[in-house]
Amino acid sequence: MACSSSTRPTKVQELFVYEFNERDRGSPAFLKLSQKSVNSLGDLVPFSNKLYSGDLQKRLGITAGMCILIENKPEKKGDRYEATFSFYFGDYGHISVQGPYLTYEDTCLAVTGGSGIFEGVYGQVKLHQIVFPFKLFYTFYLKGIEDLPQELLGKPVEPNPAVEPSPAAKACEPQATVTNFTN
Amino acid sequence: MACSSSTRPTKVQELFVYEFNERDRGSPAFLKLSQKSVNSLGDLVPFSNKLYSGDLQKRLGITAGMCILIENKPEKKGDRYEATFSFYFGDYGHISVQGPYLTYEDTCLAVTGGSGIFEGVYGQVKLHQIVFPFKLFYTFYLKGIEDLPQELLGKPVEPNPAVEPSPAAKACEPQATVTNFTN
Amino acid sequence: MACSSSTRPTKVQELFVYEFNERDRGSPAFLKLSQKSVNSLGDLVPFSNKLYSGDLQKRLGITAGMCILIENKPEKKGDRYEATFSFYFGDYGHISVQGPYLTYEDTCLAVTGGSGIFEGVYGQVKLHQIVFPFKLFYTFYLKGIEDLPQELLGKPVEPNPAVEPSPAAKACEPQATVTNFTN
Repeated sequence: MACSSSTRPTKVQELFVYEFNERDRGSPAFLKLSQKSVNSLGDLVPFSNKLYSGDLQKRLGITAGMCILIENKPEKKGDRYEATFSFYFGDYGHISVQGPYLTYEDTCLAVTGGSGIFEGVYGQVKLHQIVFPFKLFYTFYLKGIEDLPQELLGKPVEPNPAVEPSPAAKACEPQATVTNFTN
Repeated sequence: MACSSSTRPTKVQELFVYEFNERDRGSPAFLKLSQKSVNSLGDLVPFSNKLYSGDLQKRLGITAGMCILIENKPEKKGDRYEATFSFYFGDYGHISVQGPYLTYEDTCLAVTGGSGIFEGVYGQVKLHQIVFPFKLFYTFYLKGIEDLPQELLGKPVEPNPAVEPSPAAKACEPQATVTNFTN
Repeated sequence: MACSSSTRPTKVQELFVYEFNERDRGSPAFLKLSQKSVNSLGDLVPFSNKLYSGDLQKRLGITAGMCILIENKPEKKGDRYEATFSFYFGDYGHISVQGPYLTYEDTCLAVTGGSGIFEGVYGQVKLHQIVFPFKLFYTFYLKGIEDLPQELLGKPVEPNPAVEPSPAAKACEPQATVTNFTN
C-alpha cells in the first residue's frame, strides 16, 4: 500500500465514467426531513448507483454517499445540492469527491483523495447529467497518481439519452468487470 | 479546466472571507433527530449562508453543507460539531472543507480540495466566530494554486460585532459581486 | 499556522492509532431513517469515539463524524457504509478522511486533509476492525507533512480482542495524554 514514488506526478489524466441508477439498489433514499412540501434545506438524499467505464464495456463498481438539499430553484425547475460521495472501482480502489450537484446544469466537484491506485489523487471532476436522475457522465481530471491502467481508458461513448452499458457489463460477466468489482 | 502548470505551487496564500446568515435562506435547518432535549449526537444541521469578500465590498456566493452535532459542552455553554461544507465563489469555483466547528472557540478546518481557480488546492482555514451563529470570519491558508485574483484580495475589515457587507454588496449590485456570484 | 517549508514532503510516514467505543459518549446514534426493519440506505449513524496512540500509552482525543448506511449484505452478515469523519489529536490538530467502512472486512479510506501538524496531509488509512463495533485499529500512510513527533510513534501493540488502553491513558492522567487532548 505504501507508495514507492519519490515525487508526486502533476500531469493531468482524464478518466471517463458513467453512473446509472438501474432502480435495483433502493436508491436514492429521499429523506424529507425538512417537513416542507417543496424540496428544502433539511432534506437529505443518501444514494448508491452503479458505475461503468466510459466505453460502457466494463462494470467498475458503485457510487456511494449523500446529497444535502440546499435550495429549490423554481426558476430553474430544479434543486441545488451539496454532495459528498465516493466512486468505487473494485480492486483498483476508490476516489472521494465533495462539491455542488445541480439538477439543472453541469457542475465541477473537488477530488478530495483516494485509495489503491488513486492514493494521493487530487484534481476535479465534471458532472454531466444526461437523464435526471438516472444517467450521469463524469470526466475526472486527475493528478498526483501513476498512469491509469488501460482497462479504464477505453474511448468513451458520447453521452446521449439512449446510452446503456453493454449487456455483458450489465450482467457482470467476468470479462466485462474489473477485478472484484464493487457491488 | 485542465491545469497547465507542470509543478504545484507550495507558497501560502491568505484569503479572507465573511459568512453572514441574513435569515433569508431558511438556514440552518436544525434536525433534532437525537430526540433529546439537550443538543446531542444524532442532531444534524444542514446550512447555507451568504459569502462576502474580506473587505466586505463584494458578494461572492454562499456556503453550503452540514454540521453534525457531536457533543454538548455545558461547561463551555456550547457545542462541538463536525462540519463538511463548501464555499462558493461564482465563476471562480469552490473550496471544500472538513473539520471541527465549536460554538465557543475558534477552530481550524482542513481544505480538502476545490474547483475552478481552486483546482488542486490544499491547506487549512481558520474559523473565527464573531456573533453566534450569524457572523463568521474565515482566514484561508491556501497552497497548490496559482496567484489569486486581486478582486479577492482586498484588505479585510477587522472582525467586530458590527460588521456588515457594504450596501451595494448586500444588494448584489453588479459592480459589487464577482462574476455570476453563487446564490 | 502558515507553513514554512518551500516543498511538500512526499515520503510515507506510518501512524498507528486505536479507536475505542467505551460506551460513555452516547455513541453511535443509529438514526433509523429508512424506516425499514433491515439496515438500509437511508439509515444514518453519527458517531464519536475515543482515540489512543498505537502503543496504548497515550490518550490522543476523539473521532467524530458520520457513517451512511449503503447496503446490508446478508451473505456477509454485515453492512457497507460510506464514512466521513475526522481524527482529533489535541493541540497537534486533526486528520479528515472519507471512504468505505465495511463491518465484515478491512478497508482503506482516503485522507482528505488536516490541520496543525497535519496541515497539507494526504494519503490513505487502513481500517482494521478488531471487535465490532467497539475496537478498531488504524494504520495511516501519511505524506505531505514534516516528521511526526516521537510521542505519536511508539511501537504499536499488535491488535487483538483483549487490547485496552493503559489505565493511565484511560484515566487521562496528564503524563498519559497529548497536550490538550481532545474530548
